[in-house]
Amino acid sequence: MGKNLTSRAEDYSKWYNELVVKSDLAENSGVRGCMVIKPYGYAIWEKMQAQLDKMFKETGHENAYFPLFIPKSYLSKEASHVEGFAKECAVVTHYRLKNAEDGSGIVVDEDAKLEEELIVRPTSETIIWDTYRKWIQSYRDLPLKINQWANVVRWEMRTRLFLRTAEFLWQEGHTAHATREEAIEEAELMMHVYAEFVENYMGVPVIKGTKTASERFAGAEETYCIEALMQDGKALQAGTSHFLGQNFAKAFDVKFATKEGGQEYVWATSWGVSTRLMGALVMTHSDDNGLVLPPKLAPIQVVIVPIYKGMDQLDAISEKVEPLVMQLRAKGISVKYDNRDTHKPGFKFNEYELKGVPVRLAIGQRDLENGTYEVARRDTLEKESVSAAEIVGKVEALLEDIQRNVYQKAIDYRAEHITRVDSYEEFKKVIEEKGGFVSAHWDGTPETEDKIKEETKATIRCIPLHEEQEEGTCMVTGKPSLQRVLFAKAY
Amino acid sequence: MGKNLTSRAEDYSKWYNELVVKSDLAENSGVRGCMVIKPYGYAIWEKMQAQLDKMFKETGHENAYFPLFIPKSYLSKEASHVEGFAKECAVVTHYRLKNAEDGSGIVVDEDAKLEEELIVRPTSETIIWDTYRKWIQSYRDLPLKINQWANVVRWEMRTRLFLRTAEFLWQEGHTAHATREEAIEEAELMMHVYAEFVENYMGVPVIKGTKTASERFAGAEETYCIEALMQDGKALQAGTSHFLGQNFAKAFDVKFATKEGGQEYVWATSWGVSTRLMGALVMTHSDDNGLVLPPKLAPIQVVIVPIYKGMDQLDAISEKVEPLVMQLRAKGISVKYDNRDTHKPGFKFNEYELKGVPVRLAIGQRDLENGTYEVARRDTLEKESVSAAEIVGKVEALLEDIQRNVYQKAIDYRAEHITRVDSYEEFKKVIEEKGGFVSAHWDGTPETEDKIKEETKATIRCIPLHEEQEEGTCMVTGKPSLQRVLFAKAY
Repeated sequence: MGKNLTSRAEDYSKWYNELVVKSDLAENSGVRGCMVIKPYGYAIWEKMQAQLDKMFKETGHENAYFPLFIPKSYLSKEASHVEGFAKECAVVTHYRLKNAEDGSGIVVDEDAKLEEELIVRPTSETIIWDTYRKWIQSYRDLPLKINQWANVVRWEMRTRLFLRTAEFLWQEGHTAHATREEAIEEAELMMHVYAEFVENYMGVPVIKGTKTASERFAGAEETYCIEALMQDGKALQAGTSHFLGQNFAKAFDVKFATKEGGQEYVWATSWGVSTRLMGALVMTHSDDNGLVLPPKLAPIQVVIVPIYKGMDQLDAISEKVEPLVMQLRAKGISVKYDNRDTHKPGFKFNEYELKGVPVRLAIGQRDLENGTYEVARRDTLEKESVSAAEIVGKVEALLEDIQRNVYQKAIDYRAEHITRVDSYEEFKKVIEEKGGFVSAHWDGTPETEDKIKEETKATIRCIPLHEEQEEGTCMVTGKPSLQRVLFAKAY
Repeated sequence: MGKNLTSRAEDYSKWYNELVVKSDLAENSGVRGCMVIKPYGYAIWEKMQAQLDKMFKETGHENAYFPLFIPKSYLSKEASHVEGFAKECAVVTHYRLKNAEDGSGIVVDEDAKLEEELIVRPTSETIIWDTYRKWIQSYRDLPLKINQWANVVRWEMRTRLFLRTAEFLWQEGHTAHATREEAIEEAELMMHVYAEFVENYMGVPVIKGTKTASERFAGAEETYCIEALMQDGKALQAGTSHFLGQNFAKAFDVKFATKEGGQEYVWATSWGVSTRLMGALVMTHSDDNGLVLPPKLAPIQVVIVPIYKGMDQLDAISEKVEPLVMQLRAKGISVKYDNRDTHKPGFKFNEYELKGVPVRLAIGQRDLENGTYEVARRDTLEKESVSAAEIVGKVEALLEDIQRNVYQKAIDYRAEHITRVDSYEEFKKVIEEKGGFVSAHWDGTPETEDKIKEETKATIRCIPLHEEQEEGTCMVTGKPSLQRVLFAKAY
């Protein structure tokens, strides 16, 4: 199997599309804009889910499940929310099909028209806050910290596997609090939880910050985000956490009796990450040979390929390998011993390289005689010979080192792609020629933000947290600015 | 908190509805027929999922994810399939809302009408077999054994929490095989896997069998099922596994190159269990005091309630309890120490009884002095005093014993509610007065089956596997019959 993968330099976008399909992560379905997540891709998503779910529970959240459908009237209750989602939602209008009277096939049964249309959830604030009204009466019922794993639909016109699909999988946290401060604390906490996951498990460094008013979630008072940088110099929003103020509580009339005996509207947050993270994972680490997966999320961490002629040699190899497989599994390492006799070693090497398996062991006749394995690491493609006695320790060390290395490589790449500029000319040049994040002063107005976006396609990715205050002047208008913000072209 | 629960004897159906809501498992949402699964209910479902998922993986299945939407034309490709599902499906016809021109609010944008309507999946055979066509070329690609965890929608007119809802959560396995025999073996295997789960984890005994032609899944050649019996004498289908023959392969043109160089249609199975199992769990074990949960699926296995006056006593108790909590958790037991000072012990006792927590420990001043705990088991409501030194072992033993006991109780109930009858008169009397399963001879025709159903509301739940052959005559028509089948009224 040749990989026949377009190189990143040649066409980054094409490279990505081909890689996702060829490495068996996902493919387009017969339904416009909807993807099929294939077993290998889903196995990575399951690992992400398991870790995130653990982190949510450790921070006091519980899972629940709310309806797929949202009555049209619910969506309309929060003004900016409906503004944000009405333009791209799938609408259920009927609940039955029937045989056409003219025999032309199956048609919608007009007698089964819904009184009120249902929207397939694009996000669940409205249906959840309609429910919270019943659950929250008193300060004793707060905080309420719930997460949901679900599918959502946003009818995008231009779609790309994982990055932008009509249907995608995600989790959405929805919390309710007695005070503004506590809700803000929660929204910030979840941004940090996301950052910890994305950095420590996905090996993708992120910048934490807040969105400008025009980039905020529809219905939020503040949107916290984590922004990552892809190898083509474009940014990708990896997760968002919203402080919703009392907007949804007011829209759905959710009040609570305070300790002091008053009645107050509840404070809210929501936060989510989606299968989009799969796109970030692929685009951050992979190379022209295929996927490079961080060991913590690799469905197969170690593959063992026997190199043999004839069944006797294979048997002798298997006798060595099988106890090793057991030893590695006992350490919690996921191992595949690929002894298929339908495919040659070279084919297998290619396949596991394409699929980003972090560590590959090969063992042939000479290794058998010498008591060695050939060990190859996917991230650097380096190979070495390691004695069987040391192999378990070597594999453990390698997995840790690869996890560290892919992260460090991404950090280094990003460090080289954050440019500070002080003039709009310079800004345009960097955005056009080099890409990456550009740190610049901005006057804080949506007008300037729009102008920059229109002229350069770059948007403000975030107002970084903990960025030092620095007096300056907006690169476009020359008006005063107290802090640099981060611009980039983005996915 | 009084429980105010209707008793089973008074009104079984009302008891169930009240119990599901009051024990915080689920509730109806603002969307007709769609439920909200609350955190406590979802925690049980998560435990079910985790165990089933493990069993699926151990039997060689992988997870994947397919689109929520099914183009109308796909549904129509398999004749009996569309017949079965067209009458109850949610249809997406538009992909945008807009502001009404007369200012009356948000309306469907008629300019955004889909060329082809999309059905919200009622089950995924069609979209999956459309995908399998691309994945299967050769016998080397077989078997293909995939499972999906997903939400599905069937527009039911009369709904009940968990038992029958418009949207529900489930898993659906879809496998492809090179031979008829292998597919049948798979369908049977999954029936056994389901039975093992339902009996050993849910503590619900089931009868394995096959469905009659008229009760089969729309598109199946054989439907294997597991049937459980509820405390009101009605049966509940707990899981089904279908041998689909080559029906979907033919409808979606999925052929493979055989080892011998020919081309053949692929053989298929599908199998699923859903959140309906939650209903079976509740209805099998629970009593007039609330839920009774089998320890293996209880989100909280042990609750510890302190009985104290003043903070000094609470501190002294907590000093004892906290190490115990650690010890129990180290054994993998989920423990809640409820030291809330907002609620009295009696309230807490009631609450955990209602929620079916298997073991309750209480500790007060006198226990502290005597070095004891009061131990109560939820299934029998028995209480005893146990010394602190023996408490860990006691709790472990109790959890095992409760798991065994609730299962045995359900087996005993069922044994008392399987009646063999030889005349239709007797049949009608048993169905009417006693309920339960009725084992009787039937002539094998759908006409007789329909007549019985119409006259008694009883259906053939299954043709039991491994039932001994026994020559007899149909209780209705007197025609010859070789095997008894199981009738019951059913959910």
